Amino acid sequence: MKLWSGRFSKGTDKTVEDFTSSLSIDKRLYKEDIAGSVAHAKMLGAVGIITDPEARTICSALGEIETAIEKNNFSFEPGDEDIHMAIERALIEKIGAAGGKLHTARSRNDQVATDVRLYLKGAIVRQGHEIADLQKTLLALAEDNKQTVLPGYTHLQRAQPVFLAHHYLAYVSMFGRDQNRLVECFKEADVMPLGSAALAGTALPVNRKIVAEELGFSSISSNSMDAVSDRDFIVQFIGAAAITMSHLSRLAEEVIIWSSSEFSFIELDDGFSTGSSIMPQKKNPDVAELVRAKSSRIIGNLTGILCLLKGLPLTYNRDLQEDKTFLFDTIDTLSGCLKTMTGLLATLTINHDQMAASAGGFTIATDFADYLVKKDVPFRSAHETTGKLVKWSIENDKSLADLTVEDLRQFDERFEADALELVDPATSAKSRRGEGGTGQKSIETQLKVAAANVVAFEDWLAQRSGD
Amino acid sequence: MKLWSGRFSKGTDKTVEDFTSSLSIDKRLYKEDIAGSVAHAKMLGAVGIITDPEARTICSALGEIETAIEKNNFSFEPGDEDIHMAIERALIEKIGAAGGKLHTARSRNDQVATDVRLYLKGAIVRQGHEIADLQKTLLALAEDNKQTVLPGYTHLQRAQPVFLAHHYLAYVSMFGRDQNRLVECFKEADVMPLGSAALAGTALPVNRKIVAEELGFSSISSNSMDAVSDRDFIVQFIGAAAITMSHLSRLAEEVIIWSSSEFSFIELDDGFSTGSSIMPQKKNPDVAELVRAKSSRIIGNLTGILCLLKGLPLTYNRDLQEDKTFLFDTIDTLSGCLKTMTGLLATLTINHDQMAASAGGFTIATDFADYLVKKDVPFRSAHETTGKLVKWSIENDKSLADLTVEDLRQFDERFEADALELVDPATSAKSRRGEGGTGQKSIETQLKVAAANVVAFEDWLAQRSGD
Amino acid sequence: MKLWSGRFSKGTDKTVEDFTSSLSIDKRLYKEDIAGSVAHAKMLGAVGIITDPEARTICSALGEIETAIEKNNFSFEPGDEDIHMAIERALIEKIGAAGGKLHTARSRNDQVATDVRLYLKGAIVRQGHEIADLQKTLLALAEDNKQTVLPGYTHLQRAQPVFLAHHYLAYVSMFGRDQNRLVECFKEADVMPLGSAALAGTALPVNRKIVAEELGFSSISSNSMDAVSDRDFIVQFIGAAAITMSHLSRLAEEVIIWSSSEFSFIELDDGFSTGSSIMPQKKNPDVAELVRAKSSRIIGNLTGILCLLKGLPLTYNRDLQEDKTFLFDTIDTLSGCLKTMTGLLATLTINHDQMAASAGGFTIATDFADYLVKKDVPFRSAHETTGKLVKWSIENDKSLADLTVEDLRQFDERFEADALELVDPATSAKSRRGEGGTGQKSIETQLKVAAANVVAFEDWLAQRSGD
Amino acid sequence: MKLWSGRFSKGTDKTVEDFTSSLSIDKRLYKEDIAGSVAHAKMLGAVGIITDPEARTICSALGEIETAIEKNNFSFEPGDEDIHMAIERALIEKIGAAGGKLHTARSRNDQVATDVRLYLKGAIVRQGHEIADLQKTLLALAEDNKQTVLPGYTHLQRAQPVFLAHHYLAYVSMFGRDQNRLVECFKEADVMPLGSAALAGTALPVNRKIVAEELGFSSISSNSMDAVSDRDFIVQFIGAAAITMSHLSRLAEEVIIWSSSEFSFIELDDGFSTGSSIMPQKKNPDVAELVRAKSSRIIGNLTGILCLLKGLPLTYNRDLQEDKTFLFDTIDTLSGCLKTMTGLLATLTINHDQMAASAGGFTIATDFADYLVKKDVPFRSAHETTGKLVKWSIENDKSLADLTVEDLRQFDERFEADALELVDPATSAKSRRGEGGTGQKSIETQLKVAAANVVAFEDWLAQRSGD
Repeated sequence: MKLWSGRFSKGTDKTVEDFTSSLSIDKRLYKEDIAGSVAHAKMLGAVGIITDPEARTICSALGEIETAIEKNNFSFEPGDEDIHMAIERALIEKIGAAGGKLHTARSRNDQVATDVRLYLKGAIVRQGHEIADLQKTLLALAEDNKQTVLPGYTHLQRAQPVFLAHHYLAYVSMFGRDQNRLVECFKEADVMPLGSAALAGTALPVNRKIVAEELGFSSISSNSMDAVSDRDFIVQFIGAAAITMSHLSRLAEEVIIWSSSEFSFIELDDGFSTGSSIMPQKKNPDVAELVRAKSSRIIGNLTGILCLLKGLPLTYNRDLQEDKTFLFDTIDTLSGCLKTMTGLLATLTINHDQMAASAGGFTIATDFADYLVKKDVPFRSAHETTGKLVKWSIENDKSLADLTVEDLRQFDERFEADALELVDPATSAKSRRGEGGTGQKSIETQLKVAAANVVAFEDWLAQRSGD
Repeated sequence: MKLWSGRFSKGTDKTVEDFTSSLSIDKRLYKEDIAGSVAHAKMLGAVGIITDPEARTICSALGEIETAIEKNNFSFEPGDEDIHMAIERALIEKIGAAGGKLHTARSRNDQVATDVRLYLKGAIVRQGHEIADLQKTLLALAEDNKQTVLPGYTHLQRAQPVFLAHHYLAYVSMFGRDQNRLVECFKEADVMPLGSAALAGTALPVNRKIVAEELGFSSISSNSMDAVSDRDFIVQFIGAAAITMSHLSRLAEEVIIWSSSEFSFIELDDGFSTGSSIMPQKKNPDVAELVRAKSSRIIGNLTGILCLLKGLPLTYNRDLQEDKTFLFDTIDTLSGCLKTMTGLLATLTINHDQMAASAGGFTIATDFADYLVKKDVPFRSAHETTGKLVKWSIENDKSLADLTVEDLRQFDERFEADALELVDPATSAKSRRGEGGTGQKSIETQLKVAAANVVAFEDWLAQRSGD
Repeated sequence: MKLWSGRFSKGTDKTVEDFTSSLSIDKRLYKEDIAGSVAHAKMLGAVGIITDPEARTICSALGEIETAIEKNNFSFEPGDEDIHMAIERALIEKIGAAGGKLHTARSRNDQVATDVRLYLKGAIVRQGHEIADLQKTLLALAEDNKQTVLPGYTHLQRAQPVFLAHHYLAYVSMFGRDQNRLVECFKEADVMPLGSAALAGTALPVNRKIVAEELGFSSISSNSMDAVSDRDFIVQFIGAAAITMSHLSRLAEEVIIWSSSEFSFIELDDGFSTGSSIMPQKKNPDVAELVRAKSSRIIGNLTGILCLLKGLPLTYNRDLQEDKTFLFDTIDTLSGCLKTMTGLLATLTINHDQMAASAGGFTIATDFADYLVKKDVPFRSAHETTGKLVKWSIENDKSLADLTVEDLRQFDERFEADALELVDPATSAKSRRGEGGTGQKSIETQLKVAAANVVAFEDWLAQRSGD
Repeated sequence: MKLWSGRFSKGTDKTVEDFTSSLSIDKRLYKEDIAGSVAHAKMLGAVGIITDPEARTICSALGEIETAIEKNNFSFEPGDEDIHMAIERALIEKIGAAGGKLHTARSRNDQVATDVRLYLKGAIVRQGHEIADLQKTLLALAEDNKQTVLPGYTHLQRAQPVFLAHHYLAYVSMFGRDQNRLVECFKEADVMPLGSAALAGTALPVNRKIVAEELGFSSISSNSMDAVSDRDFIVQFIGAAAITMSHLSRLAEEVIIWSSSEFSFIELDDGFSTGSSIMPQKKNPDVAELVRAKSSRIIGNLTGILCLLKGLPLTYNRDLQEDKTFLFDTIDTLSGCLKTMTGLLATLTINHDQMAASAGGFTIATDFADYLVKKDVPFRSAHETTGKLVKWSIENDKSLADLTVEDLRQFDERFEADALELVDPATSAKSRRGEGGTGQKSIETQLKVAAANVVAFEDWLAQRSGD
């Protein structure tokens, strides 16, 4: 018998019951649902809507239910539509009439919105720690590779020499933005809808602020109709996750390319790669491939939730139940990707020689152009001159390191002996000493600032861990 | 110990093992995996790569494994990466060295592609039956409502009167296209990749055609590199499913709107609607809302799989493992939606009076315009005249049914007494007797043709059910 | 002749030239491109990389080019790949060698990123004003409809009576969040990449901070490799736009439903609706339908840009050129939707009588349940009792307003005469006086807070309008 | 004055006019719109709804309008909402009352659906030719490279040696499926909706079949309500285009990777690559990068159109106007990508030596395993043995080509001198002689079959070119 079945003549069709049930999905909200109910019951007691003993009985029974669920001693029943109904049913079975008072002055509409927000706040904090761990791993890699030269790429073509530290700091910079976005997501989630009831608010003399305080919400929603139909906080989080996944997938793509025999820039640890069922020699970067693939899943989730919300009239519509599929899959997927990529990075071996060997060649051509610029050649002419020089070298099967001053002078009289010093990739990289460049000072600054950011972020997280 | 671990110095990291395992997803392929292995083993025996007794031992042990899985007696082990490895491991445990010969001349790359194609072929047949059931329900509704008049809508504005039979036949027409697309999807899936091995084919003297025949595939893949990296058949199926879901979501939207108090065109059966946890009077079209929502999920799945495939170099990449998440969720979701919408339609009550009452009013204005056209007034002028007539009626608070010949003649002298007969919506609907129109003859034709199509489709399905 | 063609033996294929050209798309960046170049040239002069007269010549010629483009006097040439090259080409044609010095110490990679960020900052400010205008229109509607009662809906079923002011304030609340997201988007865009050069920074002694100040950027990018490949600011903006569009599409759906004959809650102004080419009586909510449709376009754009970024290795790849298609279409589409919806709302007519008539009926059933709750009936029992009462009323063809105390007492002895007062929907709505509810005090608070928020937002925008 | 303005009191708001106008998008349908109108007018004349002279006048005037548009002599007016209204307006201006008769017995709803279907049929034929051209280029590459050995990759790791012909034939196989899908898309589009009028069919005695014949449609739609609201043919086409783009993007990714210095498998023609604005040595695979990027755009379009259709109630809604944005962009984008990729492939240089050098090494490890299998070692043991052999070789810094029989025998006694012959990658590739494998016979078969398929496809296209 459904708890809402008063006006119905017959029970729900079995296929409908299965189709509409969200229990298998929202079961994981049990902790938040119970916390929300406890806070609600305490408030009902405090303002006198129910008696203090009733409130205490409810809270204590809810505690027992929580323990039962945690210990796998709770029996879900076929008719339980969702975790909220399952818990309320069990409560009523346990304590009778008093249990029937818990749902006073609330609705599943505001209840589920509260549960999901609570859950997401916790998930954001956990995800924040995972990002912080990734950042620290990247910073350690950068710290260890301040002198490691490799070619920076554009269009997957070798472009200019950079230090590997600078390369990894590019990712630190990306994930730093992700930290900021997580903070914004937390703020968006940190508003309590409870008290909005079905859609219009309640006529009973509730006190929403004490519930919010009990549950650790910073503020309460200002409009009940919006509160029960708002899922912006979910979209914003999945959107932020999609950006983080785009960063992870870029890193993953790089891992895959760098692990190829042709690049051989890195070797993955045996613990972070897998073999082939047919080709004995293979060592595959599966983890990175899966991370790359899973970024598509988050994009699909984001598409899905937006498409779901499109064109829904106010206020609550059952469509909103599907939000959790997208949200929970996003949380789990992102978390798995963050953790395995951190492990992969922490254990990979860098092939410094191979990187160094690749960093040379024509990557310092811009330095030749800049050399001429310093001798007052307009950049465009310098660029063209160097382009011709490169073409001539290729045609004559020479690398820039093979060139003599005479070779250079064929193209511009202003080349002198000191130009030959430019062909060392490390020299090139070091010369880019402006803010944000790959030069040493910039790297040191980046390392210091990024480390401080991670510390500050972890502090922020720590303050919210008890929520 | 992984079956591929020969060249590895240490085991897989635990988080990696969890992250890369696909067992929880691909477990459902066990039947197809075993069927594929049995066919492969028989062929290996037939061509002499293994001995006949070996082949028989393998097949019989695989049969036992299948039974064990079906009876929940099979113990998956933590290290089982996927269903293929789990079964092969169990086989080797069971029969030793002979079991180690099963994977001769194949790879997981062609094996999994074969399994998924087999599975999808079965799923398409099942889904075909579900669509056929939906069609039959729609046809029954149409048959019962040949005389039920209601307003046809454009822009959700009442436009012209139509028969409800014609309205439901519009959906029959849509789902008829979906039937065709399913057939195309089946053809796309019905190509056997087994024998492509890892990517290059095999040097062993296999006979692919007898395997294909054993498994019921119509043809074998022509290029091994394509065969192991092709997932077009999955995209095409999810694409077709997305179109079907767009049809279902349109129907669902209509159910929701028609169930509103304001429309009151239909009433849902108690078994196909649910109540409110707070508002006792509510009877909510949850099923339809969920169908509408779930269409977003399939769009998300389609986005995801396409995004996954984008830019993958040849041939197999581990990214492809994620295809099954999208595929299986699509199959399950579509199936659930088809079945519940069929049930919902089969049990709803149509409010003929309310429909008829809404069908009148200004919906027959076009008939007035056509009346003038038949008197040689250019359509554009007739349209304008009728527009003015409508405006005048609204301003004078009259419906078209209230008008006298004199009223009409204010706008055009050519109106005569017979024009007044046009105001009956049923007359209007009947007059649209051309092919495809809402007139009776067209409805009869549609019913006959559609019924025959469903029969033909069911025949086609029946021939593939044994696959 | 391309400006980069030094090392090439032959020109670009004509179809390639067309295919790779982005001029038709990025032409609109001309103002930002010139502003960026002027700031860059001034800095080059200030630090002595070029002479002061050279800097002045460049800046003055760039000013002339800007005027020419604005006056449509600028001739783009077939070989111009993009707006940057077109302007630089024209500059060199105009002033010769000095023009060739402009591109010193920068690359198109940092140049285009700077241009797009500048452009987006301006667009965000414009869009902010459009949202503020929409908010003010919604607030005016709310102000005018503090006493207008209508049914609040869940599942498109009448649920509980609310005031129309509260209903519109729900949208104010939504768009208020959009304001916050725009501010975050602005911050994300407000970082200057110029000085990152191709990817590694520059060896020339540039001063990035004076360029940033000249261009109105709050900060400069910290890592050059990230700076040239980062498009997070675009994704974040399109993501925020998608959420705003989801709000607009919900409003649009409601306008469409409310304009139907069946609802008749509103009538659109003739200037904001269109007619039918065949049905003279039609008045179609096309604007709302297009807004609803265009939300899909933004979702498509978001999907597209994320899918584009997925798996791109560092640093700049030509794929990034396509970012502008998604961005500019999003800006234009969102802007069009905001402006027309504001106009539509400002001119629609509200049918108060129809709303009021619909607000009654069973929508106050929850109030009966709450009545019993106040008499200490557990909510679950009260809910069930009222459900039965509703069922009985429907079966006996009565509305709740028809019931007598005796009728009520059949279901619970505790009903007394005062229960009959509950059947007035306005009474019900007024009773929901808690924070965020539809009661009057809550509405007044919401109006005040929201008005202040809009003022604060407009102030913030005003401070950035000069950027 | 709008042609539908009879019942309106005032004109359309200017911002609304801009917002709702689709002229800039649908202008390109002018040819199809005129063809449709000519066929419609002829039929109206043939069945006597209008007179023969009227029909002739209309057709002749429409012919003049077509010429005017083609010669850019047609003046679109600000109030023209779309191409249909622009042409009808001009027609009425030209020939007066007779022009006003053209729209008899049709509506824009069936008119636009007919136009778009006609247009798409033409576009499919053009796109078919572009795919056929690409196929022929790939076949030529395959023909030229039957003996070119390179490593086949899985996980971007060298896996087994294959012939380049086989590699390119994998793409031929993919695009072959795309041909089939195009044919299905054509069939889906090849149904004429004209005669469905607004949604209910028409009461006038039209003859739809002669219109269909005149326009080259194979059949007419069977249900008018479906006909005006069906956009499946667009979704199906964009879906097929998305799959084709996924193939092109995979090819593009490969081009990018193969063009890297590290791979150096191919060199792009100067006409099909571009340079850098700052780095003189660069030769960038921009074309391939843009193709990869543009696949995202088509995915975005597919997402967009599906999201647009989701949940639209019957029948025509203005949302459908936006379909053309997605469709036309898809057609143009796909066409550009097909043509440039064909050119790129036709002009690239293959570095046979580099490919051959990379094909060796451990790629033949599977051949060692198969060697043991032929000596009755179970594959799993053979795989493990070879894995250990590979590991030992790596640790001892040897390639498989360096091994002696004694080395091999350390791992399995059954290795004999003939095993050493396996180390030649060409031998390995040739040995895979089964159907679909990379062996010579399979390649010859594939070449023959694929060439025949292209011819058959071009025949099919030729028969539809006159449509």
